[in-house]
Amino acid sequence: MLTQLYRPPLALLTDLYQLTMAYGYWKLGRAEQQAVFHLFFRKAPFQGGYAIAAGLEQAVDYMNGYHFEPSDLEYLALLTGNDGKRLFEDAFLEYLGNLKLSVEVDAMPEGTAVFGQEPILRVRGPILQCQLLETPLLNIVNFQTLIATKAARISAAAGNDPVLEFGLRRAQGIDGGLSASRAAYIGGCAATSNVLAGKMFGIPVKGTHAHSWVMSFDTEQEAFEQYAAVLPNNCVFLVDTYDTIDGVRLAAEVGRKLRQQGHEMVGIRLDSGDLAYLSTEARKILDEAGFPNAAIVASNDLDERIIENLKIQGAKIAVWGVGTKLATSHDQPALGGVYKLAAIQDEAGNWQPKVKLSEQAIKTSIPGTLQVRRYEGPDGFIGDMIYDETKGIDVREIIVDAKDPTRRKRLSSKAQAVDLLQTVMQDGKRLGETEPLDKIRERAMQQISRIHPTIRRFMNPHEYPVGLDIGLHELRDQMIHDIRDKRLVDSVGDG
Amino acid sequence: MLTQLYRPPLALLTDLYQLTMAYGYWKLGRAEQQAVFHLFFRKAPFQGGYAIAAGLEQAVDYMNGYHFEPSDLEYLALLTGNDGKRLFEDAFLEYLGNLKLSVEVDAMPEGTAVFGQEPILRVRGPILQCQLLETPLLNIVNFQTLIATKAARISAAAGNDPVLEFGLRRAQGIDGGLSASRAAYIGGCAATSNVLAGKMFGIPVKGTHAHSWVMSFDTEQEAFEQYAAVLPNNCVFLVDTYDTIDGVRLAAEVGRKLRQQGHEMVGIRLDSGDLAYLSTEARKILDEAGFPNAAIVASNDLDERIIENLKIQGAKIAVWGVGTKLATSHDQPALGGVYKLAAIQDEAGNWQPKVKLSEQAIKTSIPGTLQVRRYEGPDGFIGDMIYDETKGIDVREIIVDAKDPTRRKRLSSKAQAVDLLQTVMQDGKRLGETEPLDKIRERAMQQISRIHPTIRRFMNPHEYPVGLDIGLHELRDQMIHDIRDKRLVDSVGDG
Repeated sequence: MLTQLYRPPLALLTDLYQLTMAYGYWKLGRAEQQAVFHLFFRKAPFQGGYAIAAGLEQAVDYMNGYHFEPSDLEYLALLTGNDGKRLFEDAFLEYLGNLKLSVEVDAMPEGTAVFGQEPILRVRGPILQCQLLETPLLNIVNFQTLIATKAARISAAAGNDPVLEFGLRRAQGIDGGLSASRAAYIGGCAATSNVLAGKMFGIPVKGTHAHSWVMSFDTEQEAFEQYAAVLPNNCVFLVDTYDTIDGVRLAAEVGRKLRQQGHEMVGIRLDSGDLAYLSTEARKILDEAGFPNAAIVASNDLDERIIENLKIQGAKIAVWGVGTKLATSHDQPALGGVYKLAAIQDEAGNWQPKVKLSEQAIKTSIPGTLQVRRYEGPDGFIGDMIYDETKGIDVREIIVDAKDPTRRKRLSSKAQAVDLLQTVMQDGKRLGETEPLDKIRERAMQQISRIHPTIRRFMNPHEYPVGLDIGLHELRDQMIHDIRDKRLVDSVGDG
Repeated sequence: MLTQLYRPPLALLTDLYQLTMAYGYWKLGRAEQQAVFHLFFRKAPFQGGYAIAAGLEQAVDYMNGYHFEPSDLEYLALLTGNDGKRLFEDAFLEYLGNLKLSVEVDAMPEGTAVFGQEPILRVRGPILQCQLLETPLLNIVNFQTLIATKAARISAAAGNDPVLEFGLRRAQGIDGGLSASRAAYIGGCAATSNVLAGKMFGIPVKGTHAHSWVMSFDTEQEAFEQYAAVLPNNCVFLVDTYDTIDGVRLAAEVGRKLRQQGHEMVGIRLDSGDLAYLSTEARKILDEAGFPNAAIVASNDLDERIIENLKIQGAKIAVWGVGTKLATSHDQPALGGVYKLAAIQDEAGNWQPKVKLSEQAIKTSIPGTLQVRRYEGPDGFIGDMIYDETKGIDVREIIVDAKDPTRRKRLSSKAQAVDLLQTVMQDGKRLGETEPLDKIRERAMQQISRIHPTIRRFMNPHEYPVGLDIGLHELRDQMIHDIRDKRLVDSVGDG
């Protein structure tokens, strides 16, 4: 099976500042200095309570084949600064030309439920390499995590009904479409219309016909009959080209002839109009005509809130086709994932934690070499602890809310606990095999079932307990005070 | 220069229903029947008054290398219907394996201003081929047109200030990022942070350093000084890692040392906080320190409305870095472009126009082999006429608003008129050369300048006159009545 869509390598798929910083580190003899970066988001998307990690496979793929091509270096040699002189000297480009990744990457397996502030992925290694990887890792993991989460929400709204992903035509570019299909399947979609995603990732594909098929015949009846003649085992008639109710009656009529020939109509599709009303009317017509098992497929600008609402109205829809609003994550088209330096090794080989301040407390970063420990009881997940792996967990076993440090929780040591970040690359090379997509999808389904329903709900979800190990919290607090106190003194000195 | 990112071919990058319909046409002996499809959107995005066509180059690239690989056919042979039997028979897969495109494609040159209902692209050829191309053409053209339009709006808000596109890390997949960089440049951005986009498309690239650079040193001062030592010709200091105002003072200090060494600081960057306040304060500090030409670059969730507002507030920002909200088109992440059958050739070789009805008048399609004629006076564009190329323009030279046929306008024959759709592929092959991106960008700038400012404004823009040639309008009206009257009769018959 194909997993790589791109012509490798894509080493230049990064922001220019990663390369200027890389040049800086190299020039200062710090290229190989060891550093730790974490990729995480601050808040779950869609004002929801959780996200589903996705995109790791493509991220590892990206890193696994990482190298600079001669043409990349030729291009970089052309870049100039404000004095018209070159940005990068030849010896640096030569260094890039010989560069082989040696980073260690630890990550949450795809399909894992993840919450705000938790590292989804951790990169440890030469600071130059860590930095170059920032942009592509964010690009790949941000988007797939966003879409897997959106798909999980849409699938939750649809309950046990299958959700089909139909978004390719409105997706943001070719890879926007392909990676959306992959992530949507992880998040719970049953199939996609995207045939290349089917081939590349083994996702089931679905589709029958469009309005153009109907229009290309003199009458709708001819269009349905001819479709049935040619593809008798794939009949979902699109009924709204001219008049929906007429179309449903016609579908039932053609369905009867199909049955006489030993085939069963799969169903009909509604793609416009009031889906609550039309699906109820269509259901009656189909039932009366002897097609209680013919599925009503609906599509047309659906998302989790519209599906939830149609369910409340009792719409008789059995299969949900969701396109634009899923594949572009329409109500929030970007996950605000970031990638932050959290520790650096000094010349003596000691790890120095690093923190970035912000006037918004939620933007102040978490220092250290972080790991996430998830505590689980018989009823589901209890809470997650972010701790520094190099220091271990404080004996008090208390987590402190990073946003409001007065909120604390003791996590029972009797609960089962598992560390979520697992090593996926060592010395720049992939460890282990590609996970089958179905296994990832099963993990996502299992993980979602372990999240309390009040955290999963759309409206004002309850917040899942995530906190810093109290030892880490105290260290971070001290670091913040040290920086702020120093600034205060400097500022008094200025005055 | 690279233009193709993907491993060709991508013939399976389509919806399954395109393939089932293709199979249907083939099976019925209609595969080679000539048809005309148009790609268009109904309403300009962002509740705006116009859009900028983009993506044609990649669309032509896609079609130019079109073919099915043996592995594609093997995959299609595995697909089954609801009886577990194959969807596609071998002879059809063989047909696909031998398929060479023979379509003619007419399109608006990239950078052309385009309005609702106007075909951006027209495909004429065997219906089977037209249908297979629907999904990839929509995917490619929808997204780039959306982003070029967004970039045009953001650039308009920024006035003469350069806008830098910084979106790769939050873009929707790799190609989401690359094609966004390209389209953003067409729409008016001055540069991108995306180095691969720079290499592939020749877009200027910009970037200096991130917070991590500052954090990796013991002090901010050391970080700035070392950056200046290493990249003296590329100094835009990011000043908000710890405290913004302190950071600006430090930047000025380092700028002075840099100047002593014969280099000039380019500027500073603000990436958080209140940009109106901080830029004003920073400007004072820089001016007082002798750096009136040091640019203040701002980034942090900017879009056209925030930029407009910051300008009103008198923010002292000279360069705008726009990321997420541009590259994902955050407030409307999909252009609702569609691709509709509009005519089909009958056995006698006559073109039969085709129309799709809808309960929403705006969704009723326009039949024919359409061309767009733009009328232009000395002060700019006057109005556009959509007409059927095979029938020519009605002698009355009147356009009729498709949404409200009582609104009509006579277009002066004295105005200059130009037909916008130009042949870009013939018999499935590209005509002419790739247009240089700078030329496309200039066209966009020139076109935008010809649109009346009241149509360009963000708030309740005036509507640009686009209408159907009155002859085409009358034909379409008749066709709609014919279908509806027939249904009415049928329906009376039912009762």
